[in-house]
Amino acid sequence: MNTKRQTHRPAAPSAGDYLIASKQCELMHLQHFLQMGKLIQSIGNLVHGLQQERGASNVFLGSGGAKFGSERTAMIRESDSRHLAFNAALVEVHESLTEQPVSPQLLNHIASAVHGLETLPRLRRQVECQNLNAVEATETYSRLIQGLITVVFEAADTAVDPTIAGLLVAMVHLMNGKEFCGQERAAGSAGFSSGGFDAALSQRIMHLVAAQERCFEVFVSLADADSRALWYELRSHPREAELDRLRRLGWSVGPRRILDPELADRWFGLMTERMDVLKKVEDAVESCFHGRCVDRFGEARNSLAHQETLLATLDEDGESSQPMLVLCSSGESWQSDGVGQQFGRSILELVQEQTRRLQQMTDELQVVKETLEDRRTQEKAVLLLMAHRKIDNDEAHRVLRKLAMDQGRRLPEVARALVSMADVLN
Amino acid sequence: MNTKRQTHRPAAPSAGDYLIASKQCELMHLQHFLQMGKLIQSIGNLVHGLQQERGASNVFLGSGGAKFGSERTAMIRESDSRHLAFNAALVEVHESLTEQPVSPQLLNHIASAVHGLETLPRLRRQVECQNLNAVEATETYSRLIQGLITVVFEAADTAVDPTIAGLLVAMVHLMNGKEFCGQERAAGSAGFSSGGFDAALSQRIMHLVAAQERCFEVFVSLADADSRALWYELRSHPREAELDRLRRLGWSVGPRRILDPELADRWFGLMTERMDVLKKVEDAVESCFHGRCVDRFGEARNSLAHQETLLATLDEDGESSQPMLVLCSSGESWQSDGVGQQFGRSILELVQEQTRRLQQMTDELQVVKETLEDRRTQEKAVLLLMAHRKIDNDEAHRVLRKLAMDQGRRLPEVARALVSMADVLN
Repeated sequence: MNTKRQTHRPAAPSAGDYLIASKQCELMHLQHFLQMGKLIQSIGNLVHGLQQERGASNVFLGSGGAKFGSERTAMIRESDSRHLAFNAALVEVHESLTEQPVSPQLLNHIASAVHGLETLPRLRRQVECQNLNAVEATETYSRLIQGLITVVFEAADTAVDPTIAGLLVAMVHLMNGKEFCGQERAAGSAGFSSGGFDAALSQRIMHLVAAQERCFEVFVSLADADSRALWYELRSHPREAELDRLRRLGWSVGPRRILDPELADRWFGLMTERMDVLKKVEDAVESCFHGRCVDRFGEARNSLAHQETLLATLDEDGESSQPMLVLCSSGESWQSDGVGQQFGRSILELVQEQTRRLQQMTDELQVVKETLEDRRTQEKAVLLLMAHRKIDNDEAHRVLRKLAMDQGRRLPEVARALVSMADVLN
Repeated sequence: MNTKRQTHRPAAPSAGDYLIASKQCELMHLQHFLQMGKLIQSIGNLVHGLQQERGASNVFLGSGGAKFGSERTAMIRESDSRHLAFNAALVEVHESLTEQPVSPQLLNHIASAVHGLETLPRLRRQVECQNLNAVEATETYSRLIQGLITVVFEAADTAVDPTIAGLLVAMVHLMNGKEFCGQERAAGSAGFSSGGFDAALSQRIMHLVAAQERCFEVFVSLADADSRALWYELRSHPREAELDRLRRLGWSVGPRRILDPELADRWFGLMTERMDVLKKVEDAVESCFHGRCVDRFGEARNSLAHQETLLATLDEDGESSQPMLVLCSSGESWQSDGVGQQFGRSILELVQEQTRRLQQMTDELQVVKETLEDRRTQEKAVLLLMAHRKIDNDEAHRVLRKLAMDQGRRLPEVARALVSMADVLN
């Protein structure tokens, strides 16, 4: 089609060519996320495996090697197969990730996650020989897991289609909430097996509960109906009430009272169930994400085909289809003569329609991305508080929440204010 | 290096590979902008040509074909050669624009600009036969020019390197300011040749002056020292004072007084000089932009080479370089034994250093991009006001400025508030 309409400047592509290129660009993005979906799914599975392995390792270390030895071995085998699946997914998406200048940040965080996984064998040996305690093991596993979740976070940040970005942001927050749930399981187990929660542990658990709430709120606001339904099912399950009862028990423990250590197993069992259900919710989001990618890809491909046919028919007029446009006095609508009019009007309308659609997508995308930006800002604010006040992560989160409550402002606002202030002070 | 460190999972790339990929991704971006620079330069030149052609066409139409006939023909020839250069630049950057999923928005706006240019021959014929008046001609030329500037705007929005993005944003605002200057030249010429400014024309000129101020403020805040110096030279030139005097003359005209129409030529001449100097400032930004792309590309290539050598030396330890990491009780620093330590520490440090650097780039980039976002929001707010209050563009800008003044807030804040309110209302 090019040569025909380009006789006056044969070299340059026409407006129609760039209209097509714009749609093809959208297609490339969607194809990329069809592949990324597999990587994200494999990350969710690997994270779940490492969370199970971390839990078993904690019980194993906490019981001086008496409990969960065989369970742990089984879970390591499970994690290893999930690790292989993750590697396979990486290999599959490798070209699409590296041949295009998508995001240096994403690639760097993959490097970080992969490096973390390379240290896994050594960590396991350390647990095996009980060379480190439950807290140290939990910290190391948690860092590996956080590294993997960050990859999904960065992937979500590269999405350009708002509907797809929205589901990825829901997914990231679900993963984060599930991870806080896993850390609460570890903290609670430690507390119950030691007979009760001390002040520090109680505060840590309160922090982890609050952190889960915040994550799940975002998840609910952006997830699809089916995943949300599964989530509400989890919330209305009797398990939740019993977990609350156990938490209150742990908190209520005074100096004179000691809890039955058997509660540790009960707590661990219930929290493990809870995490398995959260994994099911995650799978629901994942399959909805995949379906949406497929749909959007199909839509985009059809509208591309439609556009190509339309431009082709416009082209059959050949030379005479040179756009012949005049501005009306209105200054807005275009008017023209003969074939040129039909052509000129059409291509202008196609361009304008695409401009409106892309603008709307950009606006919607911005709203979704703000959720990620809020999260980044809050993490920055927490790091700032930790550095300035020499306090730990939990404490920093508490300070931030208190600031928000006292000022009656949303957490992200307070975090933004804090970060911007710091920029001024430093 | 891959196979060596990957014996336990030969298929998957290593952390080092992704570290390299991340740097290569930065390189691809910089290479892309080295090419985009040529396109942006050709757009600046073509816009300047069309602005000259628009000015000549106005005088030609205003004088009933008596004046500027030959000048106009010469300028059309000049614009045509700039148009060919623009096409050549498009062809050169075409692959880099379309082979990678950079930005559907950018490609769509190129489609729009190219389509506008396809209507140029017809517009010229209309001017030739004086089938449309100066105002209509100006509107059509201005729309073509705005379409071209929008391409630069969208290109700036795709930049990932903050230093490069900053210069592009400076460039866009300089181009916009220069275009407002061109529109003021047209408005003033019309006024002086008709013997004076009526209320509407006076307000339009005040609006165009204010709009230039806002654009040039942003330019000054983001431009390089040399370009800024040229800009301050322009501002301190006696020409500025004389233009102010002429504006006041035009405004001061009462019903009983008629200005010497000869002032039209003086005004047109001075404003044309001013635009030619603004073009020189634009060229300075452009050459600084090119230099910075080259420098950043060189830096990135060197640091990539450095990283590759470092990783290679780490690799020579082969199997033994399997990272052997343990978390210290500190929970932050890593400790390990033998070769593994040296390897483990180094690659971890490389990843962490890259993470810090990329995070800083992201933060700086965000600050620069907010300037573009502010501009988008203001345009949205203006369109909203035009639609809701049934007023024209100038009037809408005035309302927005008044709102900001009355509330003592920055224009972007007021615009944001207005847009968000509209989202609620609609």
